[in-house]
Amino acid sequence: MLPHSVQSGRTAERDGGERRMKCVSCRDEYGAHDAGTCKECYEEASETEEELKREIEDLKAKVSFLRFDNHQQRPSFTDVVLVAYDGQPVPVPVPVPAHKAVLMSRSPVFKAMLETEMEESRSGTIKISDVSYDALRAFVNYLYTAEACLDEQMAYDLLVLAEKYQVKHLKAYCEKFLVSKLNWDNSIMSYAFAHQHNAKHVLDAALSMITENMNKVTKREEYVELLQKEPRLIVDIYEAYVAKLENTAAHKDS
Amino acid sequence: MLPHSVQSGRTAERDGGERRMKCVSCRDEYGAHDAGTCKECYEEASETEEELKREIEDLKAKVSFLRFDNHQQRPSFTDVVLVAYDGQPVPVPVPVPAHKAVLMSRSPVFKAMLETEMEESRSGTIKISDVSYDALRAFVNYLYTAEACLDEQMAYDLLVLAEKYQVKHLKAYCEKFLVSKLNWDNSIMSYAFAHQHNAKHVLDAALSMITENMNKVTKREEYVELLQKEPRLIVDIYEAYVAKLENTAAHKDS
Repeated sequence: MLPHSVQSGRTAERDGGERRMKCVSCRDEYGAHDAGTCKECYEEASETEEELKREIEDLKAKVSFLRFDNHQQRPSFTDVVLVAYDGQPVPVPVPVPAHKAVLMSRSPVFKAMLETEMEESRSGTIKISDVSYDALRAFVNYLYTAEACLDEQMAYDLLVLAEKYQVKHLKAYCEKFLVSKLNWDNSIMSYAFAHQHNAKHVLDAALSMITENMNKVTKREEYVELLQKEPRLIVDIYEAYVAKLENTAAHKDS
Repeated sequence: MLPHSVQSGRTAERDGGERRMKCVSCRDEYGAHDAGTCKECYEEASETEEELKREIEDLKAKVSFLRFDNHQQRPSFTDVVLVAYDGQPVPVPVPVPAHKAVLMSRSPVFKAMLETEMEESRSGTIKISDVSYDALRAFVNYLYTAEACLDEQMAYDLLVLAEKYQVKHLKAYCEKFLVSKLNWDNSIMSYAFAHQHNAKHVLDAALSMITENMNKVTKREEYVELLQKEPRLIVDIYEAYVAKLENTAAHKDS
């Protein structure tokens, strides 16, 4: 954070023969070794910062304008419902109402589905399989607001939906959250999940986490399970690990 | 703009007995008198700038996600049309299709109109009076995208619609544009317009422009017209002008 008053930053004192400056930001003195910027560049940077903050305020207002805030409370003039099937043959009883126009604008898959005379378009009901009611509701809410309240399970569920319906913005949002929650404990599970649902950022971050903790990770139950179910993914891990080892060795030699 | 390499900024040379620093941003030398920040504060400010830029990127992506981009080309599943009446008894022939849900989400006036059983809700046609087709189209487009291509006339037209339908975000957008186009030449017209349509930012800016150019402005035809039509507004100008003169005089005395 840069303070705005710069006038009093010009004082300088001699200290042990070395001329010392006073920093206009933290007000501490500094010598040549700790020099940052001249006053002109400082002022320019402060202006840039102010401009960026104004731009952020403008963009936030735009987001708030474009968002459908009260959709979930009292949706009006909806023309389609989404119904969750959570693995059982009968649907979850509560349908989630929505507007075809919003679904189409956010997802090319919904667009294709609703533009053509597919069953969903005629019946006004879109069946969403393998999803809980809560996840479906959060998914639809995100399409209206670009917001979701995530925990790890919800991030996994929404990422699956985002990938299936090609909602890139939501997918990036979930990936960012999952990467921030990565640790060596959940790295194998995240890695397998990311591979299955084409989540490249999570995949790369998980692979890196795994190769940094190979000794611990390879002793885990999830590792053994993955080895049995999808040995090809374990090969990828070893390839990355060996490349890392070789890289480190080459670095030491030079 | 702050460059990222700071390592080489530490050099300092003696010049005429005064120790001089090298600015890590512009690379020029500076003395005590032109001191800006120390290195630590510079690095902190650079990080802040990077963070702000990332936030801007995130917000831009959100805006782009929430926007209905292709609305005007091929609107799908619209359930209402807006029809422009430009002062003639017959409407402009081309109606502008839209979604009730979008209109309601952006404007409390449309919300009230469509939620209740008013004629517009039943007929699916909303008549918009005293507006050209182009302005209506731009207005509806703004409700979908938060974007408009403005010139002065369009800014006036959209501000009127924004005020009438209480679309605050659009009103602020038009006001900002009109303030940027203010000059003493258009100040009286802007002032009268702003008063009529409750545009406070334009009003304040125009009043300030007028009082700064009283001699020139009071000779103009628009001034004489306004004096005849709305003398109360001229009184407001004189009140502001006299306050300014008194303020300047008081400043000089002290």
